Amino acid sequence: MVKAGIIGSTGYAGQELVRLLLQHPEAEIVWYGSKSYIDKRYYEVFGNMFEIVDAKCMDDNMEELSEKADVIFTATPQGLCASLVNEDILSKVKIIDLSADFRIKDVSVYEQWYGIKHASPQFIGEAVYGLCEVNREQIKNARLLANPGCYTTCSILTIYPLVKEGLINPDTIIIDAKSGTSGAGRSAKVPNLYCEVNENIKAYGVASHRHTPEIEEQLSLAAGRPLVLNFTPHLVPMNRGILVTAYASLCGGVTDDEIRAAYTKYYTAEKFVRVLDSGVCPETRFVEGSNYVDVNFKTDPRTGRVIMMGATDNLVKGAAGQAVQNMNLMFGLPEAMGLELVPVFP
Amino acid sequence: MVKAGIIGSTGYAGQELVRLLLQHPEAEIVWYGSKSYIDKRYYEVFGNMFEIVDAKCMDDNMEELSEKADVIFTATPQGLCASLVNEDILSKVKIIDLSADFRIKDVSVYEQWYGIKHASPQFIGEAVYGLCEVNREQIKNARLLANPGCYTTCSILTIYPLVKEGLINPDTIIIDAKSGTSGAGRSAKVPNLYCEVNENIKAYGVASHRHTPEIEEQLSLAAGRPLVLNFTPHLVPMNRGILVTAYASLCGGVTDDEIRAAYTKYYTAEKFVRVLDSGVCPETRFVEGSNYVDVNFKTDPRTGRVIMMGATDNLVKGAAGQAVQNMNLMFGLPEAMGLELVPVFP
Amino acid sequence: MVKAGIIGSTGYAGQELVRLLLQHPEAEIVWYGSKSYIDKRYYEVFGNMFEIVDAKCMDDNMEELSEKADVIFTATPQGLCASLVNEDILSKVKIIDLSADFRIKDVSVYEQWYGIKHASPQFIGEAVYGLCEVNREQIKNARLLANPGCYTTCSILTIYPLVKEGLINPDTIIIDAKSGTSGAGRSAKVPNLYCEVNENIKAYGVASHRHTPEIEEQLSLAAGRPLVLNFTPHLVPMNRGILVTAYASLCGGVTDDEIRAAYTKYYTAEKFVRVLDSGVCPETRFVEGSNYVDVNFKTDPRTGRVIMMGATDNLVKGAAGQAVQNMNLMFGLPEAMGLELVPVFP
Amino acid sequence: MVKAGIIGSTGYAGQELVRLLLQHPEAEIVWYGSKSYIDKRYYEVFGNMFEIVDAKCMDDNMEELSEKADVIFTATPQGLCASLVNEDILSKVKIIDLSADFRIKDVSVYEQWYGIKHASPQFIGEAVYGLCEVNREQIKNARLLANPGCYTTCSILTIYPLVKEGLINPDTIIIDAKSGTSGAGRSAKVPNLYCEVNENIKAYGVASHRHTPEIEEQLSLAAGRPLVLNFTPHLVPMNRGILVTAYASLCGGVTDDEIRAAYTKYYTAEKFVRVLDSGVCPETRFVEGSNYVDVNFKTDPRTGRVIMMGATDNLVKGAAGQAVQNMNLMFGLPEAMGLELVPVFP
Repeated sequence: MVKAGIIGSTGYAGQELVRLLLQHPEAEIVWYGSKSYIDKRYYEVFGNMFEIVDAKCMDDNMEELSEKADVIFTATPQGLCASLVNEDILSKVKIIDLSADFRIKDVSVYEQWYGIKHASPQFIGEAVYGLCEVNREQIKNARLLANPGCYTTCSILTIYPLVKEGLINPDTIIIDAKSGTSGAGRSAKVPNLYCEVNENIKAYGVASHRHTPEIEEQLSLAAGRPLVLNFTPHLVPMNRGILVTAYASLCGGVTDDEIRAAYTKYYTAEKFVRVLDSGVCPETRFVEGSNYVDVNFKTDPRTGRVIMMGATDNLVKGAAGQAVQNMNLMFGLPEAMGLELVPVFP
Repeated sequence: MVKAGIIGSTGYAGQELVRLLLQHPEAEIVWYGSKSYIDKRYYEVFGNMFEIVDAKCMDDNMEELSEKADVIFTATPQGLCASLVNEDILSKVKIIDLSADFRIKDVSVYEQWYGIKHASPQFIGEAVYGLCEVNREQIKNARLLANPGCYTTCSILTIYPLVKEGLINPDTIIIDAKSGTSGAGRSAKVPNLYCEVNENIKAYGVASHRHTPEIEEQLSLAAGRPLVLNFTPHLVPMNRGILVTAYASLCGGVTDDEIRAAYTKYYTAEKFVRVLDSGVCPETRFVEGSNYVDVNFKTDPRTGRVIMMGATDNLVKGAAGQAVQNMNLMFGLPEAMGLELVPVFP
Repeated sequence: MVKAGIIGSTGYAGQELVRLLLQHPEAEIVWYGSKSYIDKRYYEVFGNMFEIVDAKCMDDNMEELSEKADVIFTATPQGLCASLVNEDILSKVKIIDLSADFRIKDVSVYEQWYGIKHASPQFIGEAVYGLCEVNREQIKNARLLANPGCYTTCSILTIYPLVKEGLINPDTIIIDAKSGTSGAGRSAKVPNLYCEVNENIKAYGVASHRHTPEIEEQLSLAAGRPLVLNFTPHLVPMNRGILVTAYASLCGGVTDDEIRAAYTKYYTAEKFVRVLDSGVCPETRFVEGSNYVDVNFKTDPRTGRVIMMGATDNLVKGAAGQAVQNMNLMFGLPEAMGLELVPVFP
Repeated sequence: MVKAGIIGSTGYAGQELVRLLLQHPEAEIVWYGSKSYIDKRYYEVFGNMFEIVDAKCMDDNMEELSEKADVIFTATPQGLCASLVNEDILSKVKIIDLSADFRIKDVSVYEQWYGIKHASPQFIGEAVYGLCEVNREQIKNARLLANPGCYTTCSILTIYPLVKEGLINPDTIIIDAKSGTSGAGRSAKVPNLYCEVNENIKAYGVASHRHTPEIEEQLSLAAGRPLVLNFTPHLVPMNRGILVTAYASLCGGVTDDEIRAAYTKYYTAEKFVRVLDSGVCPETRFVEGSNYVDVNFKTDPRTGRVIMMGATDNLVKGAAGQAVQNMNLMFGLPEAMGLELVPVFP
């Protein structure tokens, strides 16, 4: 039984982690961390947990937690995990960081896009980028795992096979992404009020969103050379779900069959990536509550471009589900344990 | 392993049944019935089932199905189950009927409210009303089970202890209920279009909704004498969830403690009915995707009334979840098997 | 041209007032008050007003405003208007208060339900309760107008004719009301976040909501004797709209025709109250953006009760629209001026 | 007073046209055409029109209508207008066609993308494409007006100035568009049901949507040479609104100031196109219910691309509002008459 502590358990991702770990046969939550709600019962913050979780919220004492837990999940704002982690802690416990602190290998890129100084750059090197389908082997041995962002998970998995196989021109990638509102977090801000989000769609963080360098770094690795791209997120009036619509120019002569073969090559053995039948567009409702990413593509011979599409649940495969998948790998458990969730529809 | 056949598997309740049975350790679906989609793969109708269910939709041949299955679920419009069932079938297979055909003991009441002739009244007598928390022992031996309606499950469980204990005047009960739109079914009708439902709330079936006599029959049994009541359903712009707000005049001198004691008496041992802490109002979001009914009450000394409140997921405890709970009881399985679902929020 | 100043113009009701006054042929806004956004351009707070309103937000200096305006609207939290108003101001300018400060005649009732001390009880006597359809003549001469609450407007107009004509037992009234989320205001609180409200319905303020005494006072006046009632508000995942479902026992022998005649008697000449055709239930979508209240009823001979229903837009007839209607009356303008708005659907 | 007849008045665009014309000081509706609802009162189809419109629905007899009306609006499926129009009718009445029949000059392109034979290609030549901001002068003299599509209006106006001024490479244009569900029409289809659309986003018509050639034709005219582009529409869970996010590579050395100057050049005198302040992203909620298109842009020096954004209400400027704007031009009325609508928020 893996003893898990959660720092930041009262955000939407933290609460989803609780939901998943409660249903995981080999995990046990030993610490519900939440600075904002210390001493409040967890179910008073999330009424769905009534009669399921009786524990009280604790502070974010990572030292103490490292004595009690086998793994610590940090579902906290940028900077916190980097400020708390140290060699002593890492020698006692594995850390799965859901923030961006250890995702980007080049610390100057991190500091530029996030606008904060990195508090423990010495650990960036050993941190493993936890995109299971790409880095499975390294993940198994990681002490410090950087859990990918929601937009990035969906974007990378949607585009990866075509970049890796050299089927598209890596300088032409444009990602237009749409997210449900849980991605904006649970803090009380006017722009996230019901009446502000409902009956509205807007772009935000245009040409400046922090997930851009993370996507670029991973796709550059796949391409074998640096690339830059456009990434535009949008806020959609729904609770969960990310849809990625990505565009790129096809390399000369690439056929639909070759593209499909590329997706098949990388994903046919992957439980959590579903390559849809030809002509079917991914929809967020069909992955809701599950750890799936649904992907597909359509080519446009008129323009010579391919439109790649991916859908995932931002709180599951985009956050808590992938964190559990990483935990499974790191502790030698079956990768899908606790994650065989049938999507909830409608 | 219980072999289950579903007639009507492509409605919302039918699909929820599929979701639950797929995650049930002792059940196996052997028949995905759907007259409208015969020969179509089930995942083509519900994209969430891609790579999970490979089966094709079958017709509604209950004779053939009775040879292959241990239990048949009928998630079909009123009248179908009654028209198909016969002694031969019942001798081979158990039936859990999610329609209203066998819920009401007085066939003339059924025929009056539903406006159709009952095709097999001879089975009404033996059919058991499958409200597990009330009729647990009879359910265990049932061949033919009448699974309660969504509004009725939530309404009865919310009010039952106070009627049973004689704390309220049974002639003063008023039920104002609100439902998500999946309760309206999946047929293509203009009033159920997105733009007709969204940004709107309305009452419907005022003083004439078919769940009224079902609630009255069950609460009359609890009261030990006939009662009539008002039941008004409303359509709410959300996918799932039923909220019941019920009103009644308190019998003289009844205290909050006595009311709470009544709820405790009937529900403290019930896994799926959660009596909330004092002052907390049930919310549909906190039961979504789960088999819970959350109940609570507030008294108003100014008017001498009690306001009783209940929330449930209409597709789970209000339909498919309760059907599985009944299946568990009928087959000697642990009652909560496959139903220990943490509510999905947000 | 009536010069209007708005204190509290950056709440949802305040902004709706701006929308309506901008389209009013005889009104001109001279003051966009908003303590929170002083010196910010109004369109920076509400992007819909870009290129329509160029003014900056001002403070809530009622003294200064009384020199510049003919009428002051206060769309502010309880207590503010009462704390600012004085005889000097009232001698120079008319005040339409959208808060509750002057709605309730009995100051002790106000102080008990609102939990604050009333700062200027001396003006309660002269304040006119601005429900136009009931108090039209007094409104015309008012200096200080108490604009009714959203729930109260819809509740009173739905029930008024039956109480006034003595068709129902006034001790049996139960009001179950449902509101869109703009009624909760624009302040940044977790319970009003998109992901908390969406896909959810709940009751709140059960047996304790502040609109209760306001409804009781007005219906008591209609009944000619004191009455108490139950009022339960619910939060619905939509932006605008209030639906009232009210229940009462009919007096012996009252017929549907008599009830319809009562509605007709009071509303046939009222432009903004529409008595729907028999059998049609009011829906909030059909009044959205307009100043209408749609009402209708259904009797239940089985229980001897009548179900009365009303729908209105909480921001229009429930707040800003009624305020403009009152302004028109107070300034001798045609009552419907600027309010002939066709409901926006879908 | 312009006498207007509407063929297809019971779709969402038709009903919006009714809303706008009812509030237009110089227009009068003389014919509410609707084959599906003949002889039904219009308010029985749209409850918002109760006590506002008393007329009954009529058939689609264009001959008869041409005797009674000065202008006929056809808000009908593709093919109908082309099949009804003839020289005799056009000699008596002006026609504003909200379908695609006369939008595309090359009849073979029309027939290929729409998959139907054009019934009256002889009128394509004289038909004027009714994008007021681009074709104002020709519109004034048109007998037969092709009202632009919703996606196309928003897409073209968002991109037009940059193409016209040669600031972007016309071969690199990618349009990612998102629409509210009223754009899908009011016919009863499963994919448009509330529970299918709510909590979901998906792309559809990828690389094959019929608005593609319309956008390409207009932007080709602006570019002075043929261009092809990618256009991907998405369905968003909201009633109204279209958001366009468009991407293109900037021509060498083009600065932000030059781009802003281009938008200013074409739109500074245009009432209905609002070029937002730098850094502000268009949002659909801020144009809802109004005839505005809000546009803005952001450049990305890293990739050398510009992201152009536009938001409009698909039923107003994207359909009925633009039709009224065209009517005003065609009848010599002030262009904004009846369209000075303040956007409704929230």
